[in-house]
This record gives sequence, structure tokens and C-alpha cells, in this order.
Amino acid sequence: MTGFGLDHLPYGVFSVSGGPRRVGVRYEDEAGDWVLDLFAATGRPEFDTPSLNAFLALGAEVWRQTRDEVRALAEDGGHTVPLDDVTLHLPVEVADYVDFYASLDHATNVGRMFRPDGDALTPNWRHLPIGYHGRAGTVVVSGTPVTRPSGQRKAPDDPAPTFGPSQRLDIEAELGFVVGTPSPPGVPVPVTGLADHVFGVTGLNDWSARDIQAWEYVPLGPFLGKSFATSISPWVTPLAALDAAWVDLPAQDPEPLPYLGPGATKGLDIDVEIELNGEVVSRPPYRTMYWSPAQMLAHLTVNGASLRTGDLFASGTISGPEPGQRGSFLELSWGGAEPFGADGHTFLRDGDVVVLRYSAPSVASGRLTLGEVAGRVEPARS
Amino acid sequence: MTGFGLDHLPYGVFSVSGGPRRVGVRYEDEAGDWVLDLFAATGRPEFDTPSLNAFLALGAEVWRQTRDEVRALAEDGGHTVPLDDVTLHLPVEVADYVDFYASLDHATNVGRMFRPDGDALTPNWRHLPIGYHGRAGTVVVSGTPVTRPSGQRKAPDDPAPTFGPSQRLDIEAELGFVVGTPSPPGVPVPVTGLADHVFGVTGLNDWSARDIQAWEYVPLGPFLGKSFATSISPWVTPLAALDAAWVDLPAQDPEPLPYLGPGATKGLDIDVEIELNGEVVSRPPYRTMYWSPAQMLAHLTVNGASLRTGDLFASGTISGPEPGQRGSFLELSWGGAEPFGADGHTFLRDGDVVVLRYSAPSVASGRLTLGEVAGRVEPARS
Repeated sequence: MTGFGLDHLPYGVFSVSGGPRRVGVRYEDEAGDWVLDLFAATGRPEFDTPSLNAFLALGAEVWRQTRDEVRALAEDGGHTVPLDDVTLHLPVEVADYVDFYASLDHATNVGRMFRPDGDALTPNWRHLPIGYHGRAGTVVVSGTPVTRPSGQRKAPDDPAPTFGPSQRLDIEAELGFVVGTPSPPGVPVPVTGLADHVFGVTGLNDWSARDIQAWEYVPLGPFLGKSFATSISPWVTPLAALDAAWVDLPAQDPEPLPYLGPGATKGLDIDVEIELNGEVVSRPPYRTMYWSPAQMLAHLTVNGASLRTGDLFASGTISGPEPGQRGSFLELSWGGAEPFGADGHTFLRDGDVVVLRYSAPSVASGRLTLGEVAGRVEPARS
Repeated sequence: MTGFGLDHLPYGVFSVSGGPRRVGVRYEDEAGDWVLDLFAATGRPEFDTPSLNAFLALGAEVWRQTRDEVRALAEDGGHTVPLDDVTLHLPVEVADYVDFYASLDHATNVGRMFRPDGDALTPNWRHLPIGYHGRAGTVVVSGTPVTRPSGQRKAPDDPAPTFGPSQRLDIEAELGFVVGTPSPPGVPVPVTGLADHVFGVTGLNDWSARDIQAWEYVPLGPFLGKSFATSISPWVTPLAALDAAWVDLPAQDPEPLPYLGPGATKGLDIDVEIELNGEVVSRPPYRTMYWSPAQMLAHLTVNGASLRTGDLFASGTISGPEPGQRGSFLELSWGGAEPFGADGHTFLRDGDVVVLRYSAPSVASGRLTLGEVAGRVEPARS
């Protein structure tokens, strides 16, 4: 068994032989790996569409009822397609995409590299989950090739910027959270509101061109260094499948302001693996993240910003305290100074294949395997 | 005549008495101001929808043909509704929203205030049009009230951040550019590609909470200080109506990299007025902007980021070199130190009404009036 038992039941969008895109649920049994065709099985129109959005918009009570129904359908069998016969597509029509920076170890590593003479963390870091908006239109499904971006780069000692392919192309291993239930303008989502609004999680690779980013990001933040591609897994794991994964966050000091819910801070015990050309080069532990998913959502909306179905927010790079737990090549190679892995990698080379794998505890089966996030680096466009 | 003659013909989305939203074009004649009901007049399905997106997706040749057709329909009369009888709606379903920082005078003013002991401009400013992604889901149509946002603020001398309503709520008078024709991933739009992709322009007010922004924006840029609301005008003026408005940009020094098209740099001679509670408090001139619309679009896509129909990119605050030409209250009050206007304003007060007005030269009528952007500040939610 591969972690897709009846305790998991993640949702995705599939097609068969160039046919229409529909919503399906993945599961396995002794006979193999299957995609349950939800429209064929239920006739519900929200499943006869090319994204999960219509289903997500129905809200948490429908998600719960449907999960029970899907489990019964899977137990009965029928209305399935072998996993090997389907093409998987981007599961969600992404509305707004927000990326956070919620790992203390990642932020500390980056700060030590970029500001060696100053404090590793900016003064605001421990007071609020720092985040920014990314480009929703370039979120792609796992398996989509990623073309090396070109842009302006200027090393500190260069007299002027130059234009060309990024020479410091990187990954960021993250976890993504998919919003189902919208919220109206002007009404913040409380720190207790995560399960009311967030349907589930995906793996996420926020591909990053460090040289482009370093030259552009002061004072308004990352832009072209990130906006060329963000990959997510084809399967969205419902929060309901992660009941056994919640753990206490590491301690927060100082105590956050009340809207960030001091004392109500749970993280997820999800293990991540970064595989580079078939070699596992890092194992970031999501349980070490400083800010919780509920805190990120409360912060995102505290100014009255509304949520839409399809909003996607991500954790930022997941890095643990150990060198073998870092979630980016920038950190794994310490800014390019310390090659890592079997063939001495620093940043991404053309042809590299990166696969992010995620797993979480489950009471019923012991372990769930979340949808992986894979991508191959294609050469820059000439 | 009020600047909506047959040389203008801007597009919007309207409804009558709670009926369905449809696409219309505004024009005036001796008898009054009208909205031409394009679905009633043409039967074309792309006009029987609640946004311009379906029409915008048809591309530049259809835009041109339709403009000729609309002019003939308006000359013939019929299929119209009096402007006073319609409700106007958000004209575009916004895909991704990007905000630039293209005014040299604005960037210099902000830099002088925020970094008094350093260079006013960051080293990258004259090499690339700095931009970042904003929140597409909180773009609203002119007339939508704006609730004062709450959030974390920390003045440099405060021992710790506090939570509460923004005390430095501001406007940013900008110009927005609406993308119609998408572009595929991996293929940059050349600096000559503006008219192939951009359908037209709107006025835009990027409401900003300066205290929230100041505390959050290092290192990843503005987030909650901006994401609560961005207002645009209900009318999108086609680029085709602005033929007489193109002027040479002020000189660019150093010469930009080739992808930013040195020597092919045209700006728009659009005059802006900022009206606060009925008093004109500033007149920013768009012709003084440093980076051109074509350069912003070329930069936005040079890393291979794709465009979608409905993408919106904005100029950033429009400020001219004179004190009476500044496009934000931050600058008009010099960080709150120099009250301005008849009643000594610094930042926005509850109940304030701000109207941004825009006009551009036209050979046929002398002057076009672009759609205005109005908003009233409502008190913070308690």
C-alpha cells in the first residue's frame, strides 16, 4: 500500500484520453491504484468541471458529507479509472496566491547569508507571519516542465546589471493551503476559522531565481524572481484526512498579539523529502514551522481582505534546524559555497528533476502519502 | 460636453433596476449621457456577461472592429439607457494584479522620507521598473466604500507592536492597464507589444495603510498595508482613444537594457486631479512618469511569466516634481509633518471622500475625461 487508502481520499482533476476534465478522488486497494470518477458516481454537477472550485465553494458541511459518501463509493467499487490511465491537471483555479515565510530556521538561514553583519531576523519576524502576494496565473501542476527564467542580475561587485538566464535557480519546498469557503470584505477570519475556510493542503514548490530576486527585491519584495512558476501537487488532501497530524507548534516568543491566538497554535506533523535526480538530499520537517496555518489565515484577513474560493496560501520554505532539513538549495549549499548531494550540486542545472514528497501520520493506516510535486528544469529560451 | 464624445467610447459593465449585468459603452450627445447596451445592439454573446473579459479575450483586431461598429451605433442612436438609470459594476474580473513604482518623483519623495540618511533611490530603481503583486480579489469599483483597516503597527520608538485601526490611511493616485490578449508561458512580451495585449486604461486608487505597511514590508514587500482595497474606475478607456496622448518619456539615465527598449519609450499625457471632500488638493501629471507602460509590460513578462485576460497592472503613485503634483497624502503632508488643503489634512479621516479624475488630449474633441475613481472612508470595524 502506498499511502492512498480510504483514510486519505484526496481530490484532483483528471481526464482520460483527451476527454473532458472532471473531479476525481484517488484511492488504492489490493487490486491497484484508482481514480474514482465523482461525476460518473454521483451525477453532481460540481464534479463535471475542470477544477475543484465549484465543489470547494459548497462549504465545510458538504465537504464532510461528501467525504463519507466517497468512502462508501470506494468501498463499493465501480466508477473508477486506473490511475495509470489518467492525465492529471491543475486541481484548483487559483484566485489569489499568497506566500508566507513561516519557518524560523529558513528565515534565520537566509538572514545570516544575506545580512551577515546584522540580525538574522528582521524586527517584525517574531510578531507577525510575514507574507506577500505571488502570481496566481503561473501556478502549475506537478510534472509541468519549468523553463529557466531570464532577467536582470547584478552581483554586488558588478558595475551594472546584466541580462541573461538565471544562474542561481532554486526550489522552495513548501506546503500549500487551499481555501474553499470565501469570506466577505471587511470581516477578518478568526484564528479559530481555519477548518471553516480551508479545504485542504497540497505540496508546493515555489521555484525561485535567487540572482534575479536579490537584485529586484528591495524595497517592494520578490517579483520576477518568483513569478515564472509555482508547482503544486495534483492531489489536494482534505484537512479532514489530517486529524492525526496536528501537533503543538514550537514555542512562540514573544507571545503573539491576541488576533494571532496565543495558546491556540497547532502545526502539522508532515514529513517532506526533497529528491534531486533520484537522490534524497533533504528531509524538512513541517512540525518545526514557527507560525501555524491558522495564524497565517488570521493574519491574511485581519485587515478586512476577503477570501475567494480558490485562494492559495503557502507556508514558505520549510527548513528544520539541521543541515539535512533545509528546504532550498540556497540553504543546502549555503549560498553556493558548500556543494551538496552525490554530484556536488549548488543551484539547479538544466535537466535536473526535483520531486517533493510529503507524508503525514494517520491513525487508520499509519501513514498518508500526499500528492508529490515534480518538475524538470528546461534550458532558458534562446 | 463632458469628455465622453464619440472619440472616447469607454467600456463598462452596467445593470438596470437589479437586472443582469451586461457590457456597455458610455457616450454623450446633445440630449444627454448614455450607456449603449452592446448586447441589445449587437446580439453578441460576449456582451451578455458580467465582465469585459470575454470581449477582451477576442484580441486587438476585434477590439478595433468593435470600436468602429460602436461609433456607428452611437451615431444612429437606440439601444441606450440614460447614464443616470444604470448601476455600474467592476468592469473586469481581475486575474493577477501587479503594481509598479514607476514615478521618479514619488520614489524619490518616499526614499527621502523613509531613508533620510541614505540614497533616496535604491540602486536598482533606474535599471528596472520595480513592481510587486497585489491582491486581485480586493479590487473594487469606484464608489465602493473603503473600511479603515486594522492591523499591527509599530513606530520606531514603540517597545512592541500594537493592534488597531490604521492611523495613517492614504491614497495612491495611479493609472491602471487592463490586459486583454493573453500570452503563453515562457514567451516574453516585447517592448513593442503593448497594443497587442493591453486593451485600455482605468483610473486606480491603491488605498494604503502606511503604518501597517511600514512595519511589515521588510523584507518581502507590502502586504496587508495594501491588500484591503484597490479601487478602479467603472469605465475602461481603450488605448485606441488615446492616440493623441502619447508623448516622449522624460530622459532615462542610464539607458535601460535592450529588453526595455531604449529609444522606444512613450508615455501618456494624462492629467490627474485629486479631490478631497470637494477640494482639488493635487494635480499629478502622468507625463512625468519615468518608466513607460510598454516597459512595465515587457519587464513583467521577461522571465516567461504568462499573461491572462483580465490581468491588471498599475503605474504606482503618480507624482510630479512640484509639491502640488504629489499623488499620495504621505507626500502631500510630507509624512504627516505638513498639513495640506483647506482643513489641514495629513492622512485620511473617517468620512473623507476622495475622487480621482483623469483627462487626456484628443484631436477630435480637445479633451477626454476618463472614468473617475471615488471612495468614502468608513470607520474601522469595531
